[in-house]
Amino acid sequence: VRERELIQTFTRPFGVARAPRGPGDDCAVLPPSRGELCVTTDAVVEGVHFTRRHFTFEDVGHKALAVNLSDLAAMGARPSWFLCALGLPARTPDGEVQALGRGMSRLARASGIALAGGNVTRAREWSVTLTCAGEVPPGRALLRGGAGAGDLLYVSGTLGDARLGLARLGTRRCPEAQARQRRPSPRLALGLLARPFASACIDLSDGLATDLVRLSEASQLGARLEVERLPLSAELSREMRGTAWRWALGGGEDYELLLAISARRAAGFERACRSAGERVTQIGRLTAERGVRCLDGDDRPVRAPAGFGHFSGI
Amino acid sequence: VRERELIQTFTRPFGVARAPRGPGDDCAVLPPSRGELCVTTDAVVEGVHFTRRHFTFEDVGHKALAVNLSDLAAMGARPSWFLCALGLPARTPDGEVQALGRGMSRLARASGIALAGGNVTRAREWSVTLTCAGEVPPGRALLRGGAGAGDLLYVSGTLGDARLGLARLGTRRCPEAQARQRRPSPRLALGLLARPFASACIDLSDGLATDLVRLSEASQLGARLEVERLPLSAELSREMRGTAWRWALGGGEDYELLLAISARRAAGFERACRSAGERVTQIGRLTAERGVRCLDGDDRPVRAPAGFGHFSGI
Repeated sequence: VRERELIQTFTRPFGVARAPRGPGDDCAVLPPSRGELCVTTDAVVEGVHFTRRHFTFEDVGHKALAVNLSDLAAMGARPSWFLCALGLPARTPDGEVQALGRGMSRLARASGIALAGGNVTRAREWSVTLTCAGEVPPGRALLRGGAGAGDLLYVSGTLGDARLGLARLGTRRCPEAQARQRRPSPRLALGLLARPFASACIDLSDGLATDLVRLSEASQLGARLEVERLPLSAELSREMRGTAWRWALGGGEDYELLLAISARRAAGFERACRSAGERVTQIGRLTAERGVRCLDGDDRPVRAPAGFGHFSGI
Repeated sequence: VRERELIQTFTRPFGVARAPRGPGDDCAVLPPSRGELCVTTDAVVEGVHFTRRHFTFEDVGHKALAVNLSDLAAMGARPSWFLCALGLPARTPDGEVQALGRGMSRLARASGIALAGGNVTRAREWSVTLTCAGEVPPGRALLRGGAGAGDLLYVSGTLGDARLGLARLGTRRCPEAQARQRRPSPRLALGLLARPFASACIDLSDGLATDLVRLSEASQLGARLEVERLPLSAELSREMRGTAWRWALGGGEDYELLLAISARRAAGFERACRSAGERVTQIGRLTAERGVRCLDGDDRPVRAPAGFGHFSGI
């Protein structure tokens, strides 16, 4: 009975955005997809990805969905449905579950993704594990491994803000960076826009330095990154001065896209971004020579800070 | 680096059963489905669903997949792919992750389901959250709500053994019941076989008493259950004597199927089960009159024990 009440409390704000034959049976039943299905699963866990002190449960609901949608964005996929598995401590107040549903449903509606089902279980700490699915026309998914030597590297938005926001949680400083930390914006529209132009794409969850290695290795290439080109917000530049690039390169949780675009498609891509109001910045290029080199304005190598990894402490 | 090693350790035993464009990108990319997609998510959590004292990590890997496959079985779906999200305590030994992968991959191979991707995150306790997908021809999924008044109720296998096994963990008694508790068998073949015959179906995860209420309410019907017909194993009959029916009715985690079959299809269904070697037992029927009545051999009502619910203690 308690389980059913918790599920109702959680699902209520999703309203008509729920899948028609979704919650309530042993499985959700979804219509055949015309395109290929892109699926991803990601979790946010109390004490690892958020703390009650610095995040509302609306923030947690938003962020849990946003980090999954960011993976769909990186494939150029259009969101279709998701499942939500909650781990809840004993005696979790209804208000927390309700706030989580509110924050998650708002982003779900804005992103055009429907809640199709889920699960709730007791656990020692709060956790939210989502599985998100989207569609792409057959053969058109943006993979990490499709880039060619000489392709230009672009990133969306600005980098390092979520890392700055993490450092400023609990203070009144850098409200925009704190918002980036609590409520990242998945770049779904850019992913769709980029599909005809990009040869490879990855979302920046663990920091540009780490994720660039992933993209270039998957494409069996190296990369040359011009650190002075990294797009920085006013807040990050002001707070960090000359070392802002370190967080732009090594800070995690940006949830921006890193895209490889062949030189002959670059002008068309930039034009399409401009007319769609999507900010992108060219930050370097892929090279036949393996390894990632980060260069300063005088073409001298700079040492990249270690990437961000929840497991780095193990 | 540690994260990548853990993922490799976990995925190695899955071998060629992995989806071709699965692990390694931001999303797994799956071919368009021809049928409808049935999707479900379920978690097993240390201290709630298992303890290290009584379960090996191979057991945990098996059980986590089995409880999800049981939901596919209940829809009459053919398994296709799954995603695995792990929550791991700091300093989790490789051997635990390896054993989990071994237990899970063995059942995955036997069930014809491919690991398509996953996620790993740090957490205070072990948890395994799976999302499983299967396919059914359009409009042919076995829902809970499709039964008619007068339909006969069947269950597969024997009931109450997992509950007995739970009570005997840590002893040498009732090895078969303990195996049912640790390594339940999802009734996938029966779900497929039943599709042309059944009007409604549910898997028994929370105890027959609870799950029968769910099926009959979803079908806007009541039910009449003959307690003396409940199929009991030799171990349960011997251990519990005259009260065995209480665990058959109220014990959870049977992962058998409860099926509604219209009277005119019953003979054909029984014949098909016999020739496929699937044990099913008729235990009652659905009624236009609402409410579930449990009757003894003299048609006197017996009081059903409360169902099994992880949240019942909250």
